[in-house]
Amino acid sequence: MTDTLTHIDATMDDRLARLFDFIRIPSVSTDPAHAPDVARAAKWLAQTLRDMGAEAKVHPTTGHPMVVGHLDGPADAPHVLFYGHYDVQPPDPLDLWNTEPFEPVLVPVDGDTHIVGRGASDDKGALMTFVEACRALIETRGRLPIRVSFLFEGEEESGSASLPGFLENAAEELACDVVLVCDTDMWDRETPAVTTMLRGLVGQQMTITAGDRDLHSGMFGNAAANALGVMSTVLASLRDAQGGVAIEGFYDGVAELPEATAAEWAALPFDEAGFLGNVGLSVPAGEQGRPVLHQVWARPSCEIHGVWGGYTDPGFKTVIPCQAHAKLSFRLVAGQDPAQIRDAFQAHVRAHLPADCSVRFTDHGLSPAWAMDAANPFLAPTLEALAQEWGRSTTCGTGGTIPIIGALREKLGVDALLVGFARFDNRIHSPNEKYDLSSFRGGMRSWVRIMEGLGQ
Amino acid sequence: MTDTLTHIDATMDDRLARLFDFIRIPSVSTDPAHAPDVARAAKWLAQTLRDMGAEAKVHPTTGHPMVVGHLDGPADAPHVLFYGHYDVQPPDPLDLWNTEPFEPVLVPVDGDTHIVGRGASDDKGALMTFVEACRALIETRGRLPIRVSFLFEGEEESGSASLPGFLENAAEELACDVVLVCDTDMWDRETPAVTTMLRGLVGQQMTITAGDRDLHSGMFGNAAANALGVMSTVLASLRDAQGGVAIEGFYDGVAELPEATAAEWAALPFDEAGFLGNVGLSVPAGEQGRPVLHQVWARPSCEIHGVWGGYTDPGFKTVIPCQAHAKLSFRLVAGQDPAQIRDAFQAHVRAHLPADCSVRFTDHGLSPAWAMDAANPFLAPTLEALAQEWGRSTTCGTGGTIPIIGALREKLGVDALLVGFARFDNRIHSPNEKYDLSSFRGGMRSWVRIMEGLGQ
Repeated sequence: MTDTLTHIDATMDDRLARLFDFIRIPSVSTDPAHAPDVARAAKWLAQTLRDMGAEAKVHPTTGHPMVVGHLDGPADAPHVLFYGHYDVQPPDPLDLWNTEPFEPVLVPVDGDTHIVGRGASDDKGALMTFVEACRALIETRGRLPIRVSFLFEGEEESGSASLPGFLENAAEELACDVVLVCDTDMWDRETPAVTTMLRGLVGQQMTITAGDRDLHSGMFGNAAANALGVMSTVLASLRDAQGGVAIEGFYDGVAELPEATAAEWAALPFDEAGFLGNVGLSVPAGEQGRPVLHQVWARPSCEIHGVWGGYTDPGFKTVIPCQAHAKLSFRLVAGQDPAQIRDAFQAHVRAHLPADCSVRFTDHGLSPAWAMDAANPFLAPTLEALAQEWGRSTTCGTGGTIPIIGALREKLGVDALLVGFARFDNRIHSPNEKYDLSSFRGGMRSWVRIMEGLGQ
Repeated sequence: MTDTLTHIDATMDDRLARLFDFIRIPSVSTDPAHAPDVARAAKWLAQTLRDMGAEAKVHPTTGHPMVVGHLDGPADAPHVLFYGHYDVQPPDPLDLWNTEPFEPVLVPVDGDTHIVGRGASDDKGALMTFVEACRALIETRGRLPIRVSFLFEGEEESGSASLPGFLENAAEELACDVVLVCDTDMWDRETPAVTTMLRGLVGQQMTITAGDRDLHSGMFGNAAANALGVMSTVLASLRDAQGGVAIEGFYDGVAELPEATAAEWAALPFDEAGFLGNVGLSVPAGEQGRPVLHQVWARPSCEIHGVWGGYTDPGFKTVIPCQAHAKLSFRLVAGQDPAQIRDAFQAHVRAHLPADCSVRFTDHGLSPAWAMDAANPFLAPTLEALAQEWGRSTTCGTGGTIPIIGALREKLGVDALLVGFARFDNRIHSPNEKYDLSSFRGGMRSWVRIMEGLGQ
């Protein structure tokens, strides 16, 4: 195997050049103006797979396209489906970037080098660790040690609306023994991790209406319902004074963390103060008395992502606005049904509205939480391969959501293995997103070892 | 006097043409991009006064200019200072206008005709009732029956920052016996009113900061303070469940309405249900148990005018924003000190912030409330002149703020008389603002009669 690993190190510049080409495509899936860029990224990926000798196709959907590809391996070896997403988050606020978000650069920092750009980590850099590992294996050995299929989605950052239907239609082509995903973090700088729990997501947008026109606060102030005041009261009512979510029935079915898992997590070297201090905070904002790691990995949440309404331009306008808008989401854990949570939220909002106000909701995704099957047979060889590359490895949880994981189990009947090389401080979804060169290199080398391990 | 009134009716088209020219200038004072338009409106007004034979000057300030003019009258007649403002509110939201905001049109409606455009009522149409009355008197009699000075401000809709200093410097030139203001409503369609109470205003903008960067709700959801969540809690805490303002000390010094005034108001034919029903509302939102007229005229208020923060573009982004913004104001009544209210508000916000969050405030005006001197000698002849034109007249309150009134009493030592011809449904500060042709005509004719009355 050494020849493949040596080859990766010797050809790093070419591998980075391909990743840079990929990052330069501004495939922002949530913004309709970027739809042509999303399509271009799909084509680029399919061509990249073909260049390695894979069969690859771009499949149109009612949303953004799916890219599916296949590379042969020994007939008796396991068949893995590698999932990644080629869409990215919007780059705003643009004025906080130090460089152009879609013009990637290398920045040497503290003994490592940062690959800086939107998608450098989430998920273009991570996705390319696997693609480049396959390329290196083919370049040095002529074929892969296992059978590999690829599924690349373009809607992960905007709700994965087309995915369930596509999985159902393409179930035969996507048949496999296990799904590999590279969209998660390492436990710490030195320790790669297999993530065994994901939170689900209910995304909601709401518009609250109070009256049929904007009013003058001199004429109507006090007497007329103010849509922004009503919305503030509604949003404030979603959390109680102890940091919990105050929607009736929200915690129904949520189990306490198994003692064994809690003990495992308690043993992890985790610095609560450092976790928050690193982003300028110091007071854990979730349920009081629960450790921060439980708050972000194992407890459901409610977060407001955007609000707007009334006069927001420079200067001042004494208007009583008749409309107020918010985008918010709930992260779910095992035991919570996304549709039930959505309905409970909407009922909560309606119950908090004055009788002469109304609300309209828009869905932005409904994904259940996920926990890996404790008997997943691919876990042990993967942890072993990771330890060979990095000297250590671990399992962990995460507070994030990867909508496909629940859908894959449901539609394809297979479990997933989440292996990530991202660092905690990669600023994904934020300005100046970066991927460490050591993540990129270690990721490629790890996937070579994992594929070797699964093929044995 | 009949000849002047007849002359006004016979030359209505010319008078409307001048008003239309004035409305066509988009003098939005709060938006720096419109500063040249505001300056143009000031020049237009000065030239209009000169065309009538007045001395008139545009005085630069550190903000928008002041226009001052003078027209002679009999030496022993009272000297009035007419105040108006030539700036207007922003026209947004533009998509709710049926016509171009700065291209005025006449729309026949229910036996009257609406002059539709931004500023048609507030304050260009109202201001022009007085200017055109002076013009008609000069055209028919050669001179005015009283001495008149004019003061036109360009910052009324954005805090009147330059006004106190200007009044102090120009006190000698602005010396007068009483100030006349035309920026208020009629009591109802048939009854003109002299407004004897105004609320004050404290305008505030705030930016709440939680942490030093936007975060990913999957990684940090629950544990990290969310600036939008913190702001919602802060804004919701400003009102109690009974509709009162919940800031400590807010009502200190606020007296109950004198019984005589309360009785006078109770006798006014006021339809609470119709007042709210006309704008699509039905539940009085202010202090429970207090009549709506007291809520809007005699009780202090707190209104949110604009909020923004986080991801507000199409689609969805699971960000935990580190900044949240709001514009809000308090309407004050007699007994409340604007600076004390501002300080109490800021202390309230700080007391409601988590220890790791911060807030920054910007002032948008501080104006005390005002009540007319009960012994104002110009009130009786004005009510009498109004009754001659309309068949009836009354005094009333209003919930609005005209910052100059308090400043005039303080800097010039004179009281004001607020006479208005606007209708309740003029949609000032809202899309499709209008002024009834009957307000414009009746206003001009009323000022002719008032000037005659004051000159006797």
